[in-house]
Amino acid sequence: MLSFASDYIAGAHPKVLQHLVETNLENLPGYGSDTYTDQAAHKIRTACECPDAQVQFLAGGTQANQFVISTGIAPYQGVIAAATGHVSIHEAGAIEYSGHKVLEIPGTNGKLAADDVRTWLDTFWADGNHQQMVMPGMVYISQPTEYGTIYSKAELEALYGVCQDYRIPLFIDGARLGYALASPSNDVTLPELAHLCDVFYIGGTKVGTLCGEAVVYTHLNAPENLITQVRQHGALLAKGRLLSVQFDALFTDGLYLEIGKHGIEMAEKLKALFTDRGYDFFLESPTNQQFIIMDNAKMRELAQEVEFSFWEKYDDEHTVVRFATSWSTTQEDIDGLAAIL
Amino acid sequence: MLSFASDYIAGAHPKVLQHLVETNLENLPGYGSDTYTDQAAHKIRTACECPDAQVQFLAGGTQANQFVISTGIAPYQGVIAAATGHVSIHEAGAIEYSGHKVLEIPGTNGKLAADDVRTWLDTFWADGNHQQMVMPGMVYISQPTEYGTIYSKAELEALYGVCQDYRIPLFIDGARLGYALASPSNDVTLPELAHLCDVFYIGGTKVGTLCGEAVVYTHLNAPENLITQVRQHGALLAKGRLLSVQFDALFTDGLYLEIGKHGIEMAEKLKALFTDRGYDFFLESPTNQQFIIMDNAKMRELAQEVEFSFWEKYDDEHTVVRFATSWSTTQEDIDGLAAIL
Amino acid sequence: MLSFASDYIAGAHPKVLQHLVETNLENLPGYGSDTYTDQAAHKIRTACECPDAQVQFLAGGTQANQFVISTGIAPYQGVIAAATGHVSIHEAGAIEYSGHKVLEIPGTNGKLAADDVRTWLDTFWADGNHQQMVMPGMVYISQPTEYGTIYSKAELEALYGVCQDYRIPLFIDGARLGYALASPSNDVTLPELAHLCDVFYIGGTKVGTLCGEAVVYTHLNAPENLITQVRQHGALLAKGRLLSVQFDALFTDGLYLEIGKHGIEMAEKLKALFTDRGYDFFLESPTNQQFIIMDNAKMRELAQEVEFSFWEKYDDEHTVVRFATSWSTTQEDIDGLAAIL
Amino acid sequence: MLSFASDYIAGAHPKVLQHLVETNLENLPGYGSDTYTDQAAHKIRTACECPDAQVQFLAGGTQANQFVISTGIAPYQGVIAAATGHVSIHEAGAIEYSGHKVLEIPGTNGKLAADDVRTWLDTFWADGNHQQMVMPGMVYISQPTEYGTIYSKAELEALYGVCQDYRIPLFIDGARLGYALASPSNDVTLPELAHLCDVFYIGGTKVGTLCGEAVVYTHLNAPENLITQVRQHGALLAKGRLLSVQFDALFTDGLYLEIGKHGIEMAEKLKALFTDRGYDFFLESPTNQQFIIMDNAKMRELAQEVEFSFWEKYDDEHTVVRFATSWSTTQEDIDGLAAIL
Repeated sequence: MLSFASDYIAGAHPKVLQHLVETNLENLPGYGSDTYTDQAAHKIRTACECPDAQVQFLAGGTQANQFVISTGIAPYQGVIAAATGHVSIHEAGAIEYSGHKVLEIPGTNGKLAADDVRTWLDTFWADGNHQQMVMPGMVYISQPTEYGTIYSKAELEALYGVCQDYRIPLFIDGARLGYALASPSNDVTLPELAHLCDVFYIGGTKVGTLCGEAVVYTHLNAPENLITQVRQHGALLAKGRLLSVQFDALFTDGLYLEIGKHGIEMAEKLKALFTDRGYDFFLESPTNQQFIIMDNAKMRELAQEVEFSFWEKYDDEHTVVRFATSWSTTQEDIDGLAAIL
Repeated sequence: MLSFASDYIAGAHPKVLQHLVETNLENLPGYGSDTYTDQAAHKIRTACECPDAQVQFLAGGTQANQFVISTGIAPYQGVIAAATGHVSIHEAGAIEYSGHKVLEIPGTNGKLAADDVRTWLDTFWADGNHQQMVMPGMVYISQPTEYGTIYSKAELEALYGVCQDYRIPLFIDGARLGYALASPSNDVTLPELAHLCDVFYIGGTKVGTLCGEAVVYTHLNAPENLITQVRQHGALLAKGRLLSVQFDALFTDGLYLEIGKHGIEMAEKLKALFTDRGYDFFLESPTNQQFIIMDNAKMRELAQEVEFSFWEKYDDEHTVVRFATSWSTTQEDIDGLAAIL
Repeated sequence: MLSFASDYIAGAHPKVLQHLVETNLENLPGYGSDTYTDQAAHKIRTACECPDAQVQFLAGGTQANQFVISTGIAPYQGVIAAATGHVSIHEAGAIEYSGHKVLEIPGTNGKLAADDVRTWLDTFWADGNHQQMVMPGMVYISQPTEYGTIYSKAELEALYGVCQDYRIPLFIDGARLGYALASPSNDVTLPELAHLCDVFYIGGTKVGTLCGEAVVYTHLNAPENLITQVRQHGALLAKGRLLSVQFDALFTDGLYLEIGKHGIEMAEKLKALFTDRGYDFFLESPTNQQFIIMDNAKMRELAQEVEFSFWEKYDDEHTVVRFATSWSTTQEDIDGLAAIL
Repeated sequence: MLSFASDYIAGAHPKVLQHLVETNLENLPGYGSDTYTDQAAHKIRTACECPDAQVQFLAGGTQANQFVISTGIAPYQGVIAAATGHVSIHEAGAIEYSGHKVLEIPGTNGKLAADDVRTWLDTFWADGNHQQMVMPGMVYISQPTEYGTIYSKAELEALYGVCQDYRIPLFIDGARLGYALASPSNDVTLPELAHLCDVFYIGGTKVGTLCGEAVVYTHLNAPENLITQVRQHGALLAKGRLLSVQFDALFTDGLYLEIGKHGIEMAEKLKALFTDRGYDFFLESPTNQQFIIMDNAKMRELAQEVEFSFWEKYDDEHTVVRFATSWSTTQEDIDGLAAIL
């Protein structure tokens, strides 16, 4: 069936898979000490224009968020995030499992405003009882957000400025970063983003790999004894090549940006289909996830012929649904949807 | 200096201290296996009209909250609380330290509404993504709340009904329970409260003891291997007598209720002082903590002669301050405050 | 260079990789709700002759051990393991990170003796202070062990008998299970093993896959809310297909057993090479890891031409080294080693 | 009944209790910001000849061990301890609950030998696989040990030397320190001990108080945001005075040393009673706990008239039992025991 259910419905981009196939029988050492790990990290450092960056490959997004946060803050600190952030609501308590509170601040369309973070931090430190409260140790955002929206360069600069004023790191979850980079509304390049935060990750799972996220510590600021900590979290793969080879492919000949570009082209066409037919959007998303307000009867009818995601109840008669595109979405998928709509 | 800074400014009620003194040289076994532990537990069961209740003495309120919650829910569950709840903001992340998320719901004047909890639970279980979210395992409230307000019997019945419908326990933090019981606005007796929840505690620290909270599991529902778990949490005192002897005194000849009554009488007089002088209250509190909106200049002037607590900023020119009474507040304190005001 | 460094030096078995390639563009739902997850689980249940087994795929061995143990015992319980067990020493504290003590019992050649476990449990429960101690909640062994040795059927029956007498589950780490099953010394079939424990896993990483371990709860005894817990541990892959498709291949046409058989055939030949040349073995291993006592000078010389692992210091002049074979070891590798030796 | 069951069978030393009584009605601020906290800390710094020491009062020994260790090492580090150490076996997993492994090294009569610790550390760092193992972050010993034995000054110097060579802190659990200081075999003064470690605590519970241990960070090395962390662990008492007033009494006019001295005098007399009657001691203890090997029939007979503790099975016909003295043991108790024996 035609599917826009998510951006992880297919396997790996053919070039990524091909690289796994062609390196399959090479004898390589384990636990991330293979040459592809060095090579992929080097390519990522180059793409980010961060020669001092330290790169750690992990298997998935929740694991990456849990690892970066719990190893990046003190045991008594918490992480500031939008109330709608992935770490706030959609990770089954993975952050709290590691002992840390998510300090939720209301956002707008999934985004945290620098001023709101500054006010929160001012208030925290001005409170005479702050020794009784969870000390903020990091700010978490995602680019794009849970709602597909993106931060402008000015917004990132403002947020990073707040973090630097308060000497806490800014962490950017880039599970879908490729689609942000390729968005026509985007004004932040990968090197710029890398220089506007302390740690971020380049998501592979939703942008062309079978699994894998590349965590980038931008300025020699990785936690001490990193490999020990990755293993302690149950996150160290014996065959580290599975991750490094895939990222080696993604960062060869601009594949990562190309994948993002394709996903966004498909999203723009999908958006046009719904716009032309008079559908209302829950919000204006410039990336690969589109949130459409749909009459419940229409939703049920459509679900017979195409897959998409329930997002949230809108009112008694309408539902917000999500249609996602990705590197694997084809023109035929778009045409098929047009025919159905 | 005259002090209304908190309800823990003095040591123990003289009768409590006296009981410690008179039993001091008795040879008793350790770790809560002394006869006073049995005796105090029996008196508490009687006072609660809960013959099957299991009683565990712990040293302090945050410890009690951390212990009851973390041993009362599954490792992957969270606890529902008002966004202003003590566990939400004033325990430095003690709940998250134990691995659990506090699922914050907006309240009114510190209170959670049964309907809001029901709606939250309905929404949670209706969400197709609930496997990605923190499953609710308990509801936490306090009586009185952080703002001194109290739940009526009808409100507690409604909340407990919701909990029973969803088969999750209701836990009542009674750090200041004595002052709720004695409030003229209160319509819930101790036995009634005990029958409207699954676990609660009778706070000693703020109601006459040097330390100690008596956790009451109301219907043979204490966690398995309780003593092992208390020790694992670093919460088992070698001289368990310190807690049990104090509670033995509190529950002899109605001392606990008497202390509450005295604290409330003092609070009523204090309230009258401020009312008579035209002060505005931040909210209507029927218990021993009174929240007054004070002009900043007046506040600074007053602070020269009497101790009270900063609570929160009201606006640029006013502050919410807290005045607390307790068993140790005297008529002379009230008269002294009147003279100063 | 010729390598016997480990059993994870190559990528995936060609048939496993082929299955990933041929299913790559299928649209599948995420998080383990794809059809291959059902299909692979069904094949595993069949191979184990456990129609009620519940199967959960995870990415790696340490993750599997951490997950199974921490979700399988109470928060205050520990897991019994051999002092040389993988969970005891080679997981960087992953079990303790999840809050649990590894209760280490001395073993022999990596194996726990049923009698020793029984004596330990008897002593624990007879100790008047056991409330002060970590309560045992599970027994962990691996088949084969860290030293390549295997439990006989009689030994497993005895261990499982002890576990059943004390009502604690037996967990078998099968990271290299395929090589145990194929060992000429082995007398335990896969179905027999499945019926002699409560939970075990079939390791893929070291037996033909790029990653992945299949945890098998043998009798409807998986922890509640399993998917929520997998996600909470950061262990749920969005593209669950990566794991399920590989296991689907492993359990088609007997590939898993065939891989084990090949690895063992190569190990037997390797063993013969060393035996013929008069080397001493650190212990008698009937599986794919061989531990050889080597003169340090010889070791350094050999290391110029072939890769193997340092295991432990033997004495001032000798070292224990490990040579491992796997599905990817070829007759040419053996011949090459023969030439070098 | 006559009791030598433990050193915590009585309440507080009369002078300690008296100080609680006489300060009971003073109005004091909470959470350790009272003047007695400053005063007692000052007296302890003076007694330790550590002008830069930071002092934190906690309620009990397991809590102190859990707090000092978990806040003193990195989340991925473990603590080295004797296999018979209190943290290893008698705290119900409190250290593991906080996420850390206890790295157990065999000791002799409860003591860790410096050479053994050095060898362990050498071996750890020489192991090519140490990234897979739990990194040592602290050494834990107790003075006296679980078996009543004490470290000589030379032994402490050697141990501290090893710790300094490996740049890991030495932590001394002084739950019964007063009895070590007063032992005729002891050659380490309180100031010397304070200068031979990084953190230790002066136990109150077993040496004259109702509860309380004074953690001393000897050289401005307390963890950051200490109060926040104490609260996060559920260990911050609202009435911090309960702890500080008691320690203020202990460190006035040499009471602490006097209590220790009395306990040891009683122990020497008790020891003589058993020696004179031909009993064998399990080991030679120079402090307040005496371990006697007793015929089982005799043990049962004696237990009718006097309380003591079961320690461990010796052989089928004998048991090791413990007799403890303390500040509260009287000459009458000794005479009574003599009459019974």
